[in-house]
Amino acid sequence: MIQTMRTLEELTALVGGRLEGDGSISVTGVADLESARPGQITFLAHEKNIDLLSRCQATAAVVPISSSDYALPVIRVRDPYLAIAIIHNLFFDQPFQPTGIDSRAVVGHDCQISEAVAVGPLVVIGNRVVLGQRVTIEPGVVIGDDVRINDDTTLKANVTVAFGTIIGARVMVHSGTVIGSDGFGYATDHLGRHVKRPQVGIVQIDDDVEIGSNVCIDRATFGKTWIKRGVKIDNLVQIAHNVVIGEDSIIVAQGGISGSTTLGTGVVLGGQVGVAGHLLIGDRVVAAAKTGIHANLPVKAVVSGFPAIPHPLWLRISSLLVKLPELFKDVRALKKQISELREK
Amino acid sequence: MIQTMRTLEELTALVGGRLEGDGSISVTGVADLESARPGQITFLAHEKNIDLLSRCQATAAVVPISSSDYALPVIRVRDPYLAIAIIHNLFFDQPFQPTGIDSRAVVGHDCQISEAVAVGPLVVIGNRVVLGQRVTIEPGVVIGDDVRINDDTTLKANVTVAFGTIIGARVMVHSGTVIGSDGFGYATDHLGRHVKRPQVGIVQIDDDVEIGSNVCIDRATFGKTWIKRGVKIDNLVQIAHNVVIGEDSIIVAQGGISGSTTLGTGVVLGGQVGVAGHLLIGDRVVAAAKTGIHANLPVKAVVSGFPAIPHPLWLRISSLLVKLPELFKDVRALKKQISELREK
Amino acid sequence: MIQTMRTLEELTALVGGRLEGDGSISVTGVADLESARPGQITFLAHEKNIDLLSRCQATAAVVPISSSDYALPVIRVRDPYLAIAIIHNLFFDQPFQPTGIDSRAVVGHDCQISEAVAVGPLVVIGNRVVLGQRVTIEPGVVIGDDVRINDDTTLKANVTVAFGTIIGARVMVHSGTVIGSDGFGYATDHLGRHVKRPQVGIVQIDDDVEIGSNVCIDRATFGKTWIKRGVKIDNLVQIAHNVVIGEDSIIVAQGGISGSTTLGTGVVLGGQVGVAGHLLIGDRVVAAAKTGIHANLPVKAVVSGFPAIPHPLWLRISSLLVKLPELFKDVRALKKQISELREK
Repeated sequence: MIQTMRTLEELTALVGGRLEGDGSISVTGVADLESARPGQITFLAHEKNIDLLSRCQATAAVVPISSSDYALPVIRVRDPYLAIAIIHNLFFDQPFQPTGIDSRAVVGHDCQISEAVAVGPLVVIGNRVVLGQRVTIEPGVVIGDDVRINDDTTLKANVTVAFGTIIGARVMVHSGTVIGSDGFGYATDHLGRHVKRPQVGIVQIDDDVEIGSNVCIDRATFGKTWIKRGVKIDNLVQIAHNVVIGEDSIIVAQGGISGSTTLGTGVVLGGQVGVAGHLLIGDRVVAAAKTGIHANLPVKAVVSGFPAIPHPLWLRISSLLVKLPELFKDVRALKKQISELREK
Repeated sequence: MIQTMRTLEELTALVGGRLEGDGSISVTGVADLESARPGQITFLAHEKNIDLLSRCQATAAVVPISSSDYALPVIRVRDPYLAIAIIHNLFFDQPFQPTGIDSRAVVGHDCQISEAVAVGPLVVIGNRVVLGQRVTIEPGVVIGDDVRINDDTTLKANVTVAFGTIIGARVMVHSGTVIGSDGFGYATDHLGRHVKRPQVGIVQIDDDVEIGSNVCIDRATFGKTWIKRGVKIDNLVQIAHNVVIGEDSIIVAQGGISGSTTLGTGVVLGGQVGVAGHLLIGDRVVAAAKTGIHANLPVKAVVSGFPAIPHPLWLRISSLLVKLPELFKDVRALKKQISELREK
Repeated sequence: MIQTMRTLEELTALVGGRLEGDGSISVTGVADLESARPGQITFLAHEKNIDLLSRCQATAAVVPISSSDYALPVIRVRDPYLAIAIIHNLFFDQPFQPTGIDSRAVVGHDCQISEAVAVGPLVVIGNRVVLGQRVTIEPGVVIGDDVRINDDTTLKANVTVAFGTIIGARVMVHSGTVIGSDGFGYATDHLGRHVKRPQVGIVQIDDDVEIGSNVCIDRATFGKTWIKRGVKIDNLVQIAHNVVIGEDSIIVAQGGISGSTTLGTGVVLGGQVGVAGHLLIGDRVVAAAKTGIHANLPVKAVVSGFPAIPHPLWLRISSLLVKLPELFKDVRALKKQISELREK
């Protein structure tokens, strides 16, 4: 572990903030309000935690522009979360250690593997695989034939990447994830038996994508399943064949996207969201957790519920649902009253 | 890769279609409308894609019976999806390559392993395991003691099959799937502590089943968890202990079936469906995505929602829910009007 | 396999029951009503299965206190499920077999591994790992650096435990589960690009926890994600960063808990439940399957639905929803009638 040390002046410049205090002071790492020690920089995300900051041992803090005065040196920024993430990455990133290919890894023929890689023990790499510079493959990973993985990408332990998959640069795939399994496609005969449709497409994952643990991304029936630049996918997510996910989209844990659906740029799907097949979901659509999407959605739609409806309407309906017993009672009373009126 | 070549006459006979064009023309593979090249056969599933077909370079096409006239030779069939699946499998299936047992695999004692198998490197096979003819075990698979796997079955990379599991012929299990883990069964003592109920049953998977990636199928408490012939299970599905799934049923991604529930033949559960425990779900029941099933369902029921109700009723209610704000307003107005009338 | 033999007298004392019959009779194992053979003890959980018991070949049975008279010797107890679980564990538990570290496992430097362990082939253990007494590590498991695993814990095949994780005693982790992957945390810049927040905390799992297959438990951003003593987690569950789960809680399959949420003691979440982030869920809260929890819940709350509401209210509303078409019709009729009355 190489210890990095930075002055507050350097960090302020890095995040484009405003420094209050001695810029020549150095810090060596980042910690949260609860655990920060002298020599570290911490951050205040919400004004409500201001008491924690006053008791904190940190040497400096990143704080919101509009916040109070502080006893310790602070860097004021518009978005403390973003600023501290940038600072933390500075301290966290370690130089790549090119350990080469472990002797207990199994590598096929006709591969093109850069010298500066770190392939762990008990990795299996197929034939004609291409690994770029500074690629890390942890133990237990299985890579099929004809896979291409670009520079600075990491596959964590026990990941499976099936044949023909293309993975970009600076991608991180967490443990247990399976990329390139067959799509779920069958035709059904007159006896009700399901005939498998061969799945002969691939999966393409572009640069700067991060994929969580135990995720499934299926290969296309024909063509490709395509995860575009900057997409972030949480754990246990299901991406079916021929899905396209637009740049910088976020899919929270346990979401599922059915076959041939296309998501635009910057879409956010909350946890356990389901999206039906063959849909077009516009740029910057946001779906709250557990939403079920059954129809195309226009750009910037914000939806909830199942079937998905505009989020404000869903909130209104949710608040009315609990009053349904009363409403039924009211209507019964009205019927009786009208019946009495009519009898007069 | 062995190149297969077939005449249109042969393919027409194979799928029971009607040929329009020169039956002696040969094709060497299948592709979709977007990617087909000369020498390949494509298919038109929907009339709406007819423009794509006119621009397509394919040598021939499978088309619906009732469709238009075409410039290229066509095979007319009732179900183009089914016909092209059958044709595609003809081209796609490669003769099995019996590579034997890789020297870097670990095999226990008293196993009966056919000579014609393909067991990859870094596979672990327990004791007394039986592998039939043409079984393929990819790298990273772990097979427990006393497992039996029948002919032509494939376990993809990083699958886990626990002790005692029985797997039929022509089964395909995709990567990351776990078969035969303990069922989730506890008894709770007076302190609220959970005492594990030993799970001593097995999992039995019959012929022609396909199981997706990162699926979990738990062993029975006693007896067996049983996946019958022809069942197709998508990714990330949970099958609890003592579940029985009837022949040719389909469980779409992220569905979950609780303990001791029995599904009939030809049941279809959409994505993210949940089924409670100890239920009987009749033959050919269909549940739409995200349905929550809490009660037995009769044969051919088609259900949606949570709790599950008949699908047409669910559609009707969903369309009324968005009018609830208006309904509450109407009732408020009615109450006022009646109050006025009564005062007169 | 060592055959255990116990007298009914011993078993009665073990479970604090009341014996009817010859206490010197011995049994050698447990089976359910369908499969029990002579020499085994079975159990009657529900009076409705009394016919099965009368046809059963078991030598003895555990039965409810208040139940009928029986032809065979019985042990009467308040909770037959609990009693038979205790008895079954007695027969089921086998003495630990210390097979040591398989020569085909890969072990890092500076590890402290007890002599009495069973580490299988093709296991990878990082540096500075501590394994207690009678720890079992099955094939395909990958353990990162600086992991501590306490006595009598078992990691099943193909589990991944990332660096720094602390696992207590008598923990069982089933296959495919990933512990200690990065939490899903990003800050978003003004271009909509997501900047990873380094996840530098750990996962701590206390004693007597059981975790199912293909579960994901993410490491904390800072501090720890914490699964406390006695928690039982079913398959395919998602536990996000910084979640705390109180003692003896139960999370059924496919549930998901978002970041920084704390569950109290003895909480039960049904299948496919989702819990939003930064919430406090009180002790002994029960959430029915598919519940979506968006707000804090007090001790002993019993909730259903999405958004979560009290379970009895949810049942009431569910029963009213199917009457909505009728209600809308009633209100239309009322409007017409009132309009007529007003016209008079």
